[in-house]
Amino acid sequence: MSAPRLDETHDPARRSWVESANAPDCDFPIQNLPYGVFSEGGGARRVGVAIGNMILDLTATEAQGRLGPGAPVFGEGVLNPLMARPQADWDEMRRRIAGLLDERAGARDLPMVAQGDVEMHLPAYIRGFTDFYASREHATNVGSMFRDPENALLPNWLHVPIGYNGRASTVVVSGTEITRPLGQLKAPDDEAPRLGPSERLDFEVELGALVGTGNAMGQPMTTAEAFDAIFGYVLLNDWSARDIQVWEYQPLGPFQSKAFGTTISPWVVTRAALEPFRTQPPSRVKPLLPYLSEAGPNNFDIVIEGDLAPDGCAPRTILRTNARWLYYSAAQQLAHHSLSGCAMETGDLLGSGTISGAEQDSWGSLLELTWNGRDPVQVEGGTRTFLQDGDTVTLRGWCQRRYRVGFGACAGTIRPAPEWRK
Amino acid sequence: MSAPRLDETHDPARRSWVESANAPDCDFPIQNLPYGVFSEGGGARRVGVAIGNMILDLTATEAQGRLGPGAPVFGEGVLNPLMARPQADWDEMRRRIAGLLDERAGARDLPMVAQGDVEMHLPAYIRGFTDFYASREHATNVGSMFRDPENALLPNWLHVPIGYNGRASTVVVSGTEITRPLGQLKAPDDEAPRLGPSERLDFEVELGALVGTGNAMGQPMTTAEAFDAIFGYVLLNDWSARDIQVWEYQPLGPFQSKAFGTTISPWVVTRAALEPFRTQPPSRVKPLLPYLSEAGPNNFDIVIEGDLAPDGCAPRTILRTNARWLYYSAAQQLAHHSLSGCAMETGDLLGSGTISGAEQDSWGSLLELTWNGRDPVQVEGGTRTFLQDGDTVTLRGWCQRRYRVGFGACAGTIRPAPEWRK
Repeated sequence: MSAPRLDETHDPARRSWVESANAPDCDFPIQNLPYGVFSEGGGARRVGVAIGNMILDLTATEAQGRLGPGAPVFGEGVLNPLMARPQADWDEMRRRIAGLLDERAGARDLPMVAQGDVEMHLPAYIRGFTDFYASREHATNVGSMFRDPENALLPNWLHVPIGYNGRASTVVVSGTEITRPLGQLKAPDDEAPRLGPSERLDFEVELGALVGTGNAMGQPMTTAEAFDAIFGYVLLNDWSARDIQVWEYQPLGPFQSKAFGTTISPWVVTRAALEPFRTQPPSRVKPLLPYLSEAGPNNFDIVIEGDLAPDGCAPRTILRTNARWLYYSAAQQLAHHSLSGCAMETGDLLGSGTISGAEQDSWGSLLELTWNGRDPVQVEGGTRTFLQDGDTVTLRGWCQRRYRVGFGACAGTIRPAPEWRK
Repeated sequence: MSAPRLDETHDPARRSWVESANAPDCDFPIQNLPYGVFSEGGGARRVGVAIGNMILDLTATEAQGRLGPGAPVFGEGVLNPLMARPQADWDEMRRRIAGLLDERAGARDLPMVAQGDVEMHLPAYIRGFTDFYASREHATNVGSMFRDPENALLPNWLHVPIGYNGRASTVVVSGTEITRPLGQLKAPDDEAPRLGPSERLDFEVELGALVGTGNAMGQPMTTAEAFDAIFGYVLLNDWSARDIQVWEYQPLGPFQSKAFGTTISPWVVTRAALEPFRTQPPSRVKPLLPYLSEAGPNNFDIVIEGDLAPDGCAPRTILRTNARWLYYSAAQQLAHHSLSGCAMETGDLLGSGTISGAEQDSWGSLLELTWNGRDPVQVEGGTRTFLQDGDTVTLRGWCQRRYRVGFGACAGTIRPAPEWRK
């Protein structure tokens, strides 16, 4: 699919009867319509769509027969049934919801809930979580610190969308506390490792892609199929224990250093909502193999900021980056993921890899921002090299033209490591 | 848990009224009772237990009220509901089933099916598949071939149960065909990679452990808890594309080279059935950290043979190894997996890593058996360095004293790679 595909749901002049949605800096105008899963007062999980500071309860709306014909998809309180439907159904649902929320339609007694009154949950059941490494600047920074500044990028990086399978069981929704991990720690001069809480706990700013329609085992997807197969995107924080990582990662890659938690934002911004913000990737240093060629601009112009707040202190923005700088798109990653015949499934989550730009303040991890702890960053009331207990990291992201397509917040607070029980 | 815990279900004198179960070399005597999932003629999936050459249909037996009190666990046609129950329930179910199949009880019109009349399926829903690297001999062989024979083991290996997250969506049951993967291939002297079917397709002989009861995020398990948390074991073939692997694996580990298929045997041999075959691990080269210490012998004395059969030819046994030689037990791997606070879940599958012994004919992969293609192995009608289309690899494993606790077969046939579609 080459050029962006726009329809009436992208009309910048369109307004909602939900007044808060019409503010120019609102994350959730009628042109966005991200899906999420919420509950009230410990009740059952329901699917909703964010509009301004409200939620349209889609589970209830569907039960009232107000979402038109078609098999029900919101009754299970999770997005997978919709995500598994043919891609044309996603667009049709988006048009119907936009019609219900349009200023010209009026409220008509729809089931609305205030965002401040609900608890958010993981939007989808995620069986597979894969984390990539798609920022050339990030890979170069890491290679410079840990290998050789003259040959920072490994030879495969400019040819292969490098990635590894992560741990889906600890993907959590924004707001979930993250426990500092225990692990094997070994300084270069130590004789042997010791057991202890990580002392170099970090975050990584990423964009997450949620797979809608998958592929059968043994049948790879093209990049065009892969782009269309992605249902939507979230912000993603790939919490990382650098000291555990450096000791464990050879030769099979990161394992426990990344397994203790991955936070995603609760609202899934659909591929459809991002269509107007498609943009070209960075220019290619070396030609890519044809299976990675893209017919259209598959990157997205998404600003992402990262805030750090010590316990009881105000947050301070410590980085501002952009997903447009990613060298490999999610479509390329998904096509590569399926190349071997690996079956991709509805709900699979692909992390982009840490997003870093050329300038220091656009680097997406403390490892880079502090250059491996050498240059502490300023936070309210002090400085940080790596994260301390009680610290809260919050990512925020948006696309902006005449309206904003926002992702909301992706936040997590560090709690102390458990005591080890013999 | 220190010493093996034996009860009447381990009595070597016990016999079944299913006569085929009483032969001394039968894989499935009354002392084994492995669980599996089967269907007949495209019907619904049911849980069964193997006894001799028959299956006791547990889904039907339970529906008849003949498995005693307790919540139903077999109605869903998958093992997860039983696996998620408290560990004492596993032992109670084993005693009840042994009672029904005991020679002294008699057949009493139980729902029995011949193993030859059914199709087998994956025994459990597996959300997480993790592959370890626990054979010192295998890690040494690989390090000698690809790094440095003088320093073949990396420094972390004698301290850390090295592992990586694999791809659960392509774990398949014995008998499922495996499609040769496409991938990026690059010989050392090539300027750039090319796209093509893997030319160095291999198998890896492993033991798989299925997690029964898991742990909450942030709360690590001890090795004693981990040993008891494992519901049972299967044979596992970790199909591997060596040429894809060598180009992609730095720095984040194997990815597409292992993602196209992993085969497991259909019958889950319970931890209870393996109790009499617990044995000490190899002696420790360096002391392990206390969190990896084991109160009892957590290895198992399981012989595993590997057969290779070209298309239309008879199989030839090309290796014979033993799971007792694994340096790290599944209990140690599971404890390490949870150390960071990673949540482990019912149905998670842990591959032991390729099992290799000291002698050449005990090495568990073609990579080792042929020493990276240098010394072809003899097969019926020819030789092999790596696998050709149409080749069938079959693993068989068992414990043997006065009776045999067998795993049955873990088999897969290679079919040609797909054509690449632009």
